[in-house]
Amino acid sequence: MPQLRKDPVTGRWVIISPERTRRRNDFIATQGLPKSQGPCPFCRGHEAETPPEILSYRENGSGAWQTRVVPNKFPALRVEGMLERAGEGLYDHMSGIGAHEVIIETPEHRTSLAELPEKRVEDLFWAFRDRTLDLKRDTRLRYILLFKNHGEAAGASIEHTHSQLIALPVVPIQVQEELVGSRRYFEFKERCVFCDIVRQESATGARLILETEEIVALAPYAPRFSFETWLLPRAHYSHFETAHPSLIQSLAWAVRSVIRKMEKVLEFPAYNFLIHSAPVQETRMEHYHWHLEIIPRVTRVAGFEWGAGFYVNPTPPEESARYLRDAGL
Amino acid sequence: MPQLRKDPVTGRWVIISPERTRRRNDFIATQGLPKSQGPCPFCRGHEAETPPEILSYRENGSGAWQTRVVPNKFPALRVEGMLERAGEGLYDHMSGIGAHEVIIETPEHRTSLAELPEKRVEDLFWAFRDRTLDLKRDTRLRYILLFKNHGEAAGASIEHTHSQLIALPVVPIQVQEELVGSRRYFEFKERCVFCDIVRQESATGARLILETEEIVALAPYAPRFSFETWLLPRAHYSHFETAHPSLIQSLAWAVRSVIRKMEKVLEFPAYNFLIHSAPVQETRMEHYHWHLEIIPRVTRVAGFEWGAGFYVNPTPPEESARYLRDAGL
Repeated sequence: MPQLRKDPVTGRWVIISPERTRRRNDFIATQGLPKSQGPCPFCRGHEAETPPEILSYRENGSGAWQTRVVPNKFPALRVEGMLERAGEGLYDHMSGIGAHEVIIETPEHRTSLAELPEKRVEDLFWAFRDRTLDLKRDTRLRYILLFKNHGEAAGASIEHTHSQLIALPVVPIQVQEELVGSRRYFEFKERCVFCDIVRQESATGARLILETEEIVALAPYAPRFSFETWLLPRAHYSHFETAHPSLIQSLAWAVRSVIRKMEKVLEFPAYNFLIHSAPVQETRMEHYHWHLEIIPRVTRVAGFEWGAGFYVNPTPPEESARYLRDAGL
Repeated sequence: MPQLRKDPVTGRWVIISPERTRRRNDFIATQGLPKSQGPCPFCRGHEAETPPEILSYRENGSGAWQTRVVPNKFPALRVEGMLERAGEGLYDHMSGIGAHEVIIETPEHRTSLAELPEKRVEDLFWAFRDRTLDLKRDTRLRYILLFKNHGEAAGASIEHTHSQLIALPVVPIQVQEELVGSRRYFEFKERCVFCDIVRQESATGARLILETEEIVALAPYAPRFSFETWLLPRAHYSHFETAHPSLIQSLAWAVRSVIRKMEKVLEFPAYNFLIHSAPVQETRMEHYHWHLEIIPRVTRVAGFEWGAGFYVNPTPPEESARYLRDAGL
């Protein structure tokens, strides 16, 4: 019997419909890295093929680079120019001011974050923190998003493992929905909904994937996608950029572990992950709690889902959590 | 220079970033119908292979069927049972009550709606109207969605041209956002935002694709996807099921024409269309206006879009409208 479940943050309903997995087309192979075409511009020795470096972490501070941040060669937004807002009849637009950067996670040609040493994964999150602290000084920028596209089906166009950040003069609608929903919950309960989720999931365990002292990885109660996974800090923080070293270390270990588990259970799926954090120009929020979402591309998304924002998910989160929990690292 | 544009209904911002079309992966071939495996269950003569018929339109009322509605063999929701709501700690769920039906648009094996005689396309919309009027008598059902998945990349699993309807005990979040946004606009302006869109687009013409006396087809100002197209009735109606014969005739002609244009310009893309209408248990709404959205699958959607609800669209709507307008039928 299918069940409708409500996401406690946004109020979005999803259908959990395990019976539909019998349809032959519901699972598709999404593995498959983008084809390499010639030498890789992200490898050590090819630095001249990217736009000039914005940030790098080097061995002993001045040796060979280990992590490198460069502007996206085909940016969705540009930092130059004025932020101009204007109307056009009933419509509104503004200039495409922002930043679009690439975080190259390693100088060696590796195709999965899960193969990297833990320190490289930590440095990815340090780089995001450092870039956020720098970019937020530009008060035109209201939101900074870290995301990773892994595999061609998830939108990656270069196979060398990397992440991206995009800084925006507006808050994305999905984060806006989470802000509104979590505020509504806070007004009613005087508690953070994400803190309540962490507490309930830690206590019941059925949707838990792994825990450390600082991070909890779980399958959300009302996931839009098969094997959707959230990582939340156990303690309440609204802004990612306030993260302290042990939290970043814990996050890096947990992300790498969950992706290893997914690669084992789902046979190297394409996936996306992204961090939802509070808007950078706001002060600490009692009702919002940053977290990282991982979405493997294992189910086909049909028209119904796209156009209505209403998702049918064939995999109950209790099942995906059990598979991932039981898979070794 | 990229531009940020705000959807006047929902308030969602999108990036219109034409420069990014230079990336080799931004356009993907999405044509490709699902492979036929043996005889087609939707063809005349194979009626026994579907669940029992719910509705059919027949030649002269009692002859051979021309349009046929059957339950989906793998329904996402079921009409049997009680609508039970319950909590689970902080979470909420309800039983998966609803309906999931398939509208077979023709007894002949045709793979595109654009090849059908106009009458068959009209009858698709009549069937949706008739099924909506029947299903809404079940007051547990709050929303009824008509959608079509065409092509494998758009989620179709059978190539014989068909549409689907799904009846839900909740309102999908995207429609909810449109309801909230259009109410906000109405409170401010005392006009329907969709009526204002129709008026402005008819007057300026840059995003217009085609018009009839009753229907306007246009590229929306802030489209999430390349070649996204909306069809709106020129007159104000909140509920699709109130449509009169000449409006349905006009809609059928316009949908078929737009899809023919897309098949010409985009070389037979996969696509989805769906109708957004007011919740069926509500009375007439002054602020909401039903419409049909067509989304061809020509651009890759990457992680950024999925996780943030923030879209980067490489095709300005003025450009997609011009291409479609200039393509013959």
